[in-house]
Amino acid sequence: MRFLHTADWHIGKKLNDFDLLEDQQAVFEQLVTVAKQQQVDAIVIAGDLYDRALPSEAAVATLDHMLVTLNRKLNYPLLVISGNHDSAVRLRTGRSWFSTTKMYVNTQLAEAFTPVELGDTQFFLLPYFEPFAVRDYFQDATITNVAQAIRPIVAKMKAQFKPDMRHILVSHFFAAGSDHSASETKVNVGGLDAVPIDDLAAFDYVALGHLHNHNALHAEPKIQYSGALLKYAVAEAKQEKGVYIVDTDTMARTFIPLTPQHDLIELKASYAELTDPDFYRQQDRDAYIGVDLTDTQVIPNVMAQLRKIYPRIISLRRENGVTAVKPLKQRQRDLDPLSLLKNFYAEMMQTDLTADQLKWAKAGLGEAESGQKQ
Amino acid sequence: MRFLHTADWHIGKKLNDFDLLEDQQAVFEQLVTVAKQQQVDAIVIAGDLYDRALPSEAAVATLDHMLVTLNRKLNYPLLVISGNHDSAVRLRTGRSWFSTTKMYVNTQLAEAFTPVELGDTQFFLLPYFEPFAVRDYFQDATITNVAQAIRPIVAKMKAQFKPDMRHILVSHFFAAGSDHSASETKVNVGGLDAVPIDDLAAFDYVALGHLHNHNALHAEPKIQYSGALLKYAVAEAKQEKGVYIVDTDTMARTFIPLTPQHDLIELKASYAELTDPDFYRQQDRDAYIGVDLTDTQVIPNVMAQLRKIYPRIISLRRENGVTAVKPLKQRQRDLDPLSLLKNFYAEMMQTDLTADQLKWAKAGLGEAESGQKQ
Repeated sequence: MRFLHTADWHIGKKLNDFDLLEDQQAVFEQLVTVAKQQQVDAIVIAGDLYDRALPSEAAVATLDHMLVTLNRKLNYPLLVISGNHDSAVRLRTGRSWFSTTKMYVNTQLAEAFTPVELGDTQFFLLPYFEPFAVRDYFQDATITNVAQAIRPIVAKMKAQFKPDMRHILVSHFFAAGSDHSASETKVNVGGLDAVPIDDLAAFDYVALGHLHNHNALHAEPKIQYSGALLKYAVAEAKQEKGVYIVDTDTMARTFIPLTPQHDLIELKASYAELTDPDFYRQQDRDAYIGVDLTDTQVIPNVMAQLRKIYPRIISLRRENGVTAVKPLKQRQRDLDPLSLLKNFYAEMMQTDLTADQLKWAKAGLGEAESGQKQ
Repeated sequence: MRFLHTADWHIGKKLNDFDLLEDQQAVFEQLVTVAKQQQVDAIVIAGDLYDRALPSEAAVATLDHMLVTLNRKLNYPLLVISGNHDSAVRLRTGRSWFSTTKMYVNTQLAEAFTPVELGDTQFFLLPYFEPFAVRDYFQDATITNVAQAIRPIVAKMKAQFKPDMRHILVSHFFAAGSDHSASETKVNVGGLDAVPIDDLAAFDYVALGHLHNHNALHAEPKIQYSGALLKYAVAEAKQEKGVYIVDTDTMARTFIPLTPQHDLIELKASYAELTDPDFYRQQDRDAYIGVDLTDTQVIPNVMAQLRKIYPRIISLRRENGVTAVKPLKQRQRDLDPLSLLKNFYAEMMQTDLTADQLKWAKAGLGEAESGQKQ
């Protein structure tokens, strides 16, 4: 059989207040096209379907539409687990009905030991878990981290293995040895919070979610992150996003890239370059952009100015820091308001007030002063 | 056929911070027993399954368990609509799967015009609606209230009527002429925000939710509120709660009461009576209680005192108001702290400080004073 492996959809995620639902819907339609073209028999979604435990109504409606499309309209069996971003309780609501049409949604550890059998393959759907849940489940007080937790889990799964079938683990955790995307938290790289990949050797393939980089385990022949559906952080700007197609006859895996409606890029330049038409006409100005500004001086209202040219700036970083504004000198405290304003304007704008501006400033300050005296 | 008519479960509702999930689960089990004893063929739930648009995880898990029990374990067809307390989007998530096992969940107006046919009966499941949604749906700008909105809705339903079948409307609105429970809001009794019962004459039975009193339309032979699952407000203390069993052969309806784990009662008495063992030993002290206190003087810490005897007090009302505490006199502002404390204590407790209390007060005030001076 052939299946599509995806994960980390993060439906409902926003990038600096930019709502991504449309982008997510658009790339999902590409995923559907890939599933059809590749004639897959099932689709694996390895956790973090939602971005938040409490998704918005719009996010709920969007994910529901996607799952209805895949399972109810196109009749793909779906193999789904919850990730650390999902609420297990909310995601599992309705699972008793979902399985009637081969949509399997596991959100509890105990469910992982009953494999779903499709064609020649046993799928073990192991949701995101905390070590204490494994300790409770196996009544083993020595389990305090995921590295210890994974061993009894795999042992119990192996007891269910049918020797003439393929054995595939679907899960959502950090596997030791991989790179680490900026979008993940609470993970100590290579430490006790990681699953050692050697402990997963029993499986023909391990379809993972959690890390957003599909190349995170590029050296591993049998363990794979699909990566996220879209680039969800500036740190992911250089990563290609897509899905894996896995063939259980040969265990060959093929990465199929997906093209987002709007890319996510990083631009490192000075303010003068960024606002120069010769520069910006060569840029993908439709993209979500993380700007890395090389200037050191203060630039007033810089985000609003740059967004006139690049409407989807999601972050602004200062490569070289900002030259500190000089602290207010004691002497300045004694200046009259108009002199203070003139000094401040000159410092910020590197030019003096014009004659008109000076007139307006005087008039404004005069009003304020007479208002105080009334 | 025979069906059970219930509504207004309000799963997740709290009464003054008392979590009702256990009470709701307990009365639900009685509902299941009634369904079995009465050998019903289907169960109608006429809206407000949840208490809030954004229910807690615990509420989500509880309702899911109830629906799984009725539909997946006991195989009852379920006819469900959203009420004004439900989020239509959240409640409908999964409906595409639910209908595979005859659980019909309608939350959108457009869905109301495709009847569900069970046995000899066509069920029209009309979710709670706002007039503007009906105006949009029928492209009729003259529709501005529910009284106008119901007419094209019923006309369109009648066009679907099969003459040899029963026609039952399931909905969630305020029908003109009924009493009005304190738990409902935004309803002008008998006004434009009500559906005139004459406009519902086409149906053999109208199974309503919204009002919590099952007797709200006691004079109507064919239109019925089931009432809520439990008493959800002090104003409902005298109402019996239960479900209707409707037989579509005879259109007979029978009210079957349910007995809550904890009743909800109102107690009107003085503080002296309420704290008198001869009185309180005769009361249902396990009940949720709305206390209507007849005293007029200030009683210090009255709620905490009464809850020692009646642990589930949900409200405290003053039948006769409270004698106003005298405003602080100018003279008192000049009193020393110890005199102020003595006066305050005497006024609140109607007795003077004991010698010990006076000693502690002096010591405490002395410490505070010396602290200030350091």
